Amino acid sequence: MKFEEIKRILVLGAGTMGRQIAFQCAISGYHVNLYDIDPDSLESSVNQIKKFRSKFEKDGLLNKNTLDSALEKIFPTTNPGEAAKDVDLVSESVPEKPKLKGEVFAQFNKLCPANTIFTTNTSSLTPSMIAEATGRPDKFAALHFHQPVWISNVVDIVGHPGTSEETISLICAFAKQIGQIPILLMKESHFYVFNAMLNALCNSAVNLAREGVASIEDIDRSWIGVTKMPIGPFGMLDAIGLDLVYEISEYWGKVLDDPNIRANAEFLKTYFDKGQLGVKSGRGFYSYPNPAFRTPDFISLD
Amino acid sequence: MKFEEIKRILVLGAGTMGRQIAFQCAISGYHVNLYDIDPDSLESSVNQIKKFRSKFEKDGLLNKNTLDSALEKIFPTTNPGEAAKDVDLVSESVPEKPKLKGEVFAQFNKLCPANTIFTTNTSSLTPSMIAEATGRPDKFAALHFHQPVWISNVVDIVGHPGTSEETISLICAFAKQIGQIPILLMKESHFYVFNAMLNALCNSAVNLAREGVASIEDIDRSWIGVTKMPIGPFGMLDAIGLDLVYEISEYWGKVLDDPNIRANAEFLKTYFDKGQLGVKSGRGFYSYPNPAFRTPDFISLD
Repeated sequence: MKFEEIKRILVLGAGTMGRQIAFQCAISGYHVNLYDIDPDSLESSVNQIKKFRSKFEKDGLLNKNTLDSALEKIFPTTNPGEAAKDVDLVSESVPEKPKLKGEVFAQFNKLCPANTIFTTNTSSLTPSMIAEATGRPDKFAALHFHQPVWISNVVDIVGHPGTSEETISLICAFAKQIGQIPILLMKESHFYVFNAMLNALCNSAVNLAREGVASIEDIDRSWIGVTKMPIGPFGMLDAIGLDLVYEISEYWGKVLDDPNIRANAEFLKTYFDKGQLGVKSGRGFYSYPNPAFRTPDFISLD
Repeated sequence: MKFEEIKRILVLGAGTMGRQIAFQCAISGYHVNLYDIDPDSLESSVNQIKKFRSKFEKDGLLNKNTLDSALEKIFPTTNPGEAAKDVDLVSESVPEKPKLKGEVFAQFNKLCPANTIFTTNTSSLTPSMIAEATGRPDKFAALHFHQPVWISNVVDIVGHPGTSEETISLICAFAKQIGQIPILLMKESHFYVFNAMLNALCNSAVNLAREGVASIEDIDRSWIGVTKMPIGPFGMLDAIGLDLVYEISEYWGKVLDDPNIRANAEFLKTYFDKGQLGVKSGRGFYSYPNPAFRTPDFISLD
């Protein structure tokens, strides 16, 4: 396949990341099939994309015509056959379970054209863990986004040993075309690049809170005060979603047999069990839509 | 002592942090005795403070008169007796060696007035490790700064079990008076709050480079691209100084018996052995004064 032949993208999974990736592809001029197995999730995703559209228009990031045209390019569907039709590149964002991802890729391998490129947006699994299940390992690699996709416009790109060079080149060119700066990994690594660092940072922040060294607010205040970022680690965890963060900690606490990570998973579970999942549930470490760290006096000398 | 009685500060150690703390105290209206055992270090410190002054004037942060008056308030000396005379609060920034810090405090305990408050700017030792050696444990706590002190204006404050409440209150009030937001720790903890997180982040970044997952530039690019901070972990390590970073990794690799941290110390040693100490030596992971990450095309789609 030539890069110019990439016209239609299939986004698999319309959750937090899938909907952002779909929107980013559409505003970059691509047709997007947005697939989810769950009609409710798909509907909420489409509503959210309309909100992205409004925010882009309000903030003057793109004009009305471009945005109208972008939204027309997005075709939401729960029908796998429709979803797979004529797509040139697949971006998968289903839950972080290797078996599930493998099954979804195997299903779409049968439905998609033979030369369609497959990419995974996994944030913690390596392409090697899924490659064989895709049925087209040479055309498969990770293309991993960060959120919000249009602001944190960096993507990790890495294949497994069987990925063809052509596939990596196509994915790199595609990433740039949708405004994403490619970070080409020299080898596979769990958590890729940014997430490995974010994970270490957030683990350390949770350690401090769990051990009673400082309050959640003071830990974020310290991070924000020194770095001048608008958000600290607990605000970031709320944005990622405490269900996902808990799942990942729980999994890696076991795999690495690390007592700190296991204790952090237990700490996160107390929020998870109360349904405090972060931004998406309106409550996590902070309350939303107006968390304390966004108020002007969060960091002040008074 | 009452807060209003704090008039003269003694800064012990005129290195990277000591000179910034001295300048910050002076522009906040305090008299500052700046002490170093090494006349060359003291001279270079005074020259650096003049550069801070020029930068403040050039950037319009403070007017010429205020800056002139601040510089007149700084009294550099290599004479311990002169340094200790009439000081109300001591801020210590000598090298991160518990024994050395203890000896310096013991020396100045004999020279300073009996009611002078002693603080340490240590970034990795706890107050308990030094308290007895100070000879005045009730008047001793950590007051830990971040750099650049006038921008990253957050301080960790924590005592050991024998620190008086009055001492903590005085240090908190003093911190605010010099424009620093106090983060009051609920218990002692190595690396305090921000540095614990920074340390975890930087360790993870060094892991990625050492294991060959991505280049130093790409790791920083990823961090900068996602967070929009102007600097990534390797740029931050260069600013801290690779000698200090190496010493800390080497020490904690042994203490925690952590093979990753030990391997990271070895990696840092290759820079240290070549005299590449970061910003201060003109070369570290980047070359200074114009490191690659400050150039406009460091992050671009071209």
